[in-house]
Amino acid sequence: MRILILGGDGYLGWPTSMYLAGQGHQVMVVDNYLRRQICLEQGLTPLIAVPDLHQRCQQWLKSHGSRIEFAVGDVTDYPFLLGIFQRFEPEVVIHYAEQPSAPYSMMGYREARLTVSNNLISTLNVAYAVRETNPACHIIKLGTMGEYGTPNIDIEEGFIDLEHKGRSDRLLFPRQAGSLYHTTKIQDTDLLYFYVRVWGLRVTDLMQGPVYGLMTPEMGDDPKLFTFFNYDEQFGTVLNRFMVQAVAGIPLTVYGKGGQTRGYLNLMDVLQCVRLAVEKGAAPGEMQIFNQFTETFSVNQLAEKVQRVGGAMGLDVQIKSLPNPRKELEEHYYNPVHKALTDLGLTPNLLTDEVIAGMLTQAQRYRDAIQPAFIQPKTQWK
Amino acid sequence: MRILILGGDGYLGWPTSMYLAGQGHQVMVVDNYLRRQICLEQGLTPLIAVPDLHQRCQQWLKSHGSRIEFAVGDVTDYPFLLGIFQRFEPEVVIHYAEQPSAPYSMMGYREARLTVSNNLISTLNVAYAVRETNPACHIIKLGTMGEYGTPNIDIEEGFIDLEHKGRSDRLLFPRQAGSLYHTTKIQDTDLLYFYVRVWGLRVTDLMQGPVYGLMTPEMGDDPKLFTFFNYDEQFGTVLNRFMVQAVAGIPLTVYGKGGQTRGYLNLMDVLQCVRLAVEKGAAPGEMQIFNQFTETFSVNQLAEKVQRVGGAMGLDVQIKSLPNPRKELEEHYYNPVHKALTDLGLTPNLLTDEVIAGMLTQAQRYRDAIQPAFIQPKTQWK
Repeated sequence: MRILILGGDGYLGWPTSMYLAGQGHQVMVVDNYLRRQICLEQGLTPLIAVPDLHQRCQQWLKSHGSRIEFAVGDVTDYPFLLGIFQRFEPEVVIHYAEQPSAPYSMMGYREARLTVSNNLISTLNVAYAVRETNPACHIIKLGTMGEYGTPNIDIEEGFIDLEHKGRSDRLLFPRQAGSLYHTTKIQDTDLLYFYVRVWGLRVTDLMQGPVYGLMTPEMGDDPKLFTFFNYDEQFGTVLNRFMVQAVAGIPLTVYGKGGQTRGYLNLMDVLQCVRLAVEKGAAPGEMQIFNQFTETFSVNQLAEKVQRVGGAMGLDVQIKSLPNPRKELEEHYYNPVHKALTDLGLTPNLLTDEVIAGMLTQAQRYRDAIQPAFIQPKTQWK
Repeated sequence: MRILILGGDGYLGWPTSMYLAGQGHQVMVVDNYLRRQICLEQGLTPLIAVPDLHQRCQQWLKSHGSRIEFAVGDVTDYPFLLGIFQRFEPEVVIHYAEQPSAPYSMMGYREARLTVSNNLISTLNVAYAVRETNPACHIIKLGTMGEYGTPNIDIEEGFIDLEHKGRSDRLLFPRQAGSLYHTTKIQDTDLLYFYVRVWGLRVTDLMQGPVYGLMTPEMGDDPKLFTFFNYDEQFGTVLNRFMVQAVAGIPLTVYGKGGQTRGYLNLMDVLQCVRLAVEKGAAPGEMQIFNQFTETFSVNQLAEKVQRVGGAMGLDVQIKSLPNPRKELEEHYYNPVHKALTDLGLTPNLLTDEVIAGMLTQAQRYRDAIQPAFIQPKTQWK
């Protein structure tokens, strides 16, 4: 199939691009390097330097013999995006082209406006470009489990069957996110759900939990094919950050009481889930919402796992609680359903001791590059 | 109190400005004339020509002896808006500054982007300007009953108490709007609810039904103080359009089966509701959501009322069904709660025969100005 990957230069976008190209799909990547630009502005570097799309795609061709097309440009630029759709004629578009950092979205006005404007206009543009060129094109949108927040009831997959005052309906599960970034994802859901109902678009919306992991089989041991691995406050997800802290001898920073529970998944399972969405996602005119994670952990549980596995590898791993820079419940009920992707055939790569040891070993190879100053949180939610 | 009215040049904004100034409040209006600009682009004129803010505010001073300050500028221009907040130091800000036409938002890409960008960025800017200058400032936001759509269960006021799998929580009532414009209002709710929770802002969100009416006591019989009265496809609400059709001898255009039921209110009750929100709305750190309408009618019921009252006045009023240009249910359950504003003291001006006769009489005075070409719907939802 012809698959267009928007935001294909990112932490998830690039591994997805290689994976789907490796499966024999015809892949085109679009990215405006927003994440590189933000990192540059803030002096943040990923643990492992990664080449740009020119070099990445060349390296992929050299090592795997298949072509990944790409264009550097902005999805919020509608004439540019429309041109891509007209030329490439995608059957599937995977939309990762959003500002993905919660702390960045909370830094100040400029960052907030960029997040709202980039994320909403990019999604609007995707809907319009699909409608203009091929309304049957399947939109796969990366949402987030963070859209739901931490309600006191079980979280269903996107929709909830309500019984109310003797009547019933199936409606969107109510959403209440914990950052502006996550709120823009709620707004994306609102927008796409609207155009599905009015125009009959075909949308699979993946409510994804925090992702961990560095490696996928397509990378082999070739650093030119590695993905971004950020461990900083802005772009480092919690478990990735813990890995780097553990090998650098910095105490694992737990925000507040550490009871914050989320649904996590391995980078390799992201690829599986996206493939399942491509193969078995929404039908034309339908919006399918999948909760995309494999296991739930509290932050304390993650820290203890890393401490235990690191200890067995001879690392002296300490855990330290920090005043929570975020506004969130630190002890709460959390029971989200995640059945749809399993029913479609997802075979999870769980967070075993071996997986943690593998990540720690990989991080150790780049120990000298670690910048401890990147790790401490600076952005306050209040 | 010092009350800042964003979008104070509009159909509701100008009557609100005069009403609150008449109540002794210190009122400042901001508007970028977006509605005037759109009307100009599309060749649409309101039934009665209205002067600009320079003239309106001068006329108000002359006839009522109190000053309404104003600034012509764009709420999406943050430095401009921040300057207004710093100088005027509002205790209440009433946010009407949105692109309010559902058909306009469905015309094409340019109009869709303007609607999303204007409505979302204006709301973000209000939240930030309040936080920067005075977080205790009370934000009163005009939402719409259209956010809820037409679910098969009773619509609560903003939130719903859910019992689910033996547990319970109070969450946002699920929303599913019928146009892009209405969808941006959902997104506004998402945004403001987020900042209420994180920053402790004070927000009253008014889920308003379609408004009818031309006159408020502050206008007296002075056309220089009249509000916009649009009867065109873009800005004419259904009952206002029917009035003009009735006096012009054009059949009342019912879209589809005419069973579409909504909650309506008189322009004078909008003023009452906004005053109640100013006096008794949300507490600091709270989001209050009120369903703002007084009676529900189907489109057929409205058409029949206008036909009957018009007939008694000697008008020959026909009713004609058109293929529905919108995508909406034409027969559906509709039972929204609207208790909060009544409990606060709202005394409704209901849609009596006298009210309809009064509107018809007023429309008759401007019969020669009616442009029948404005009325037929041109914008298709599909």
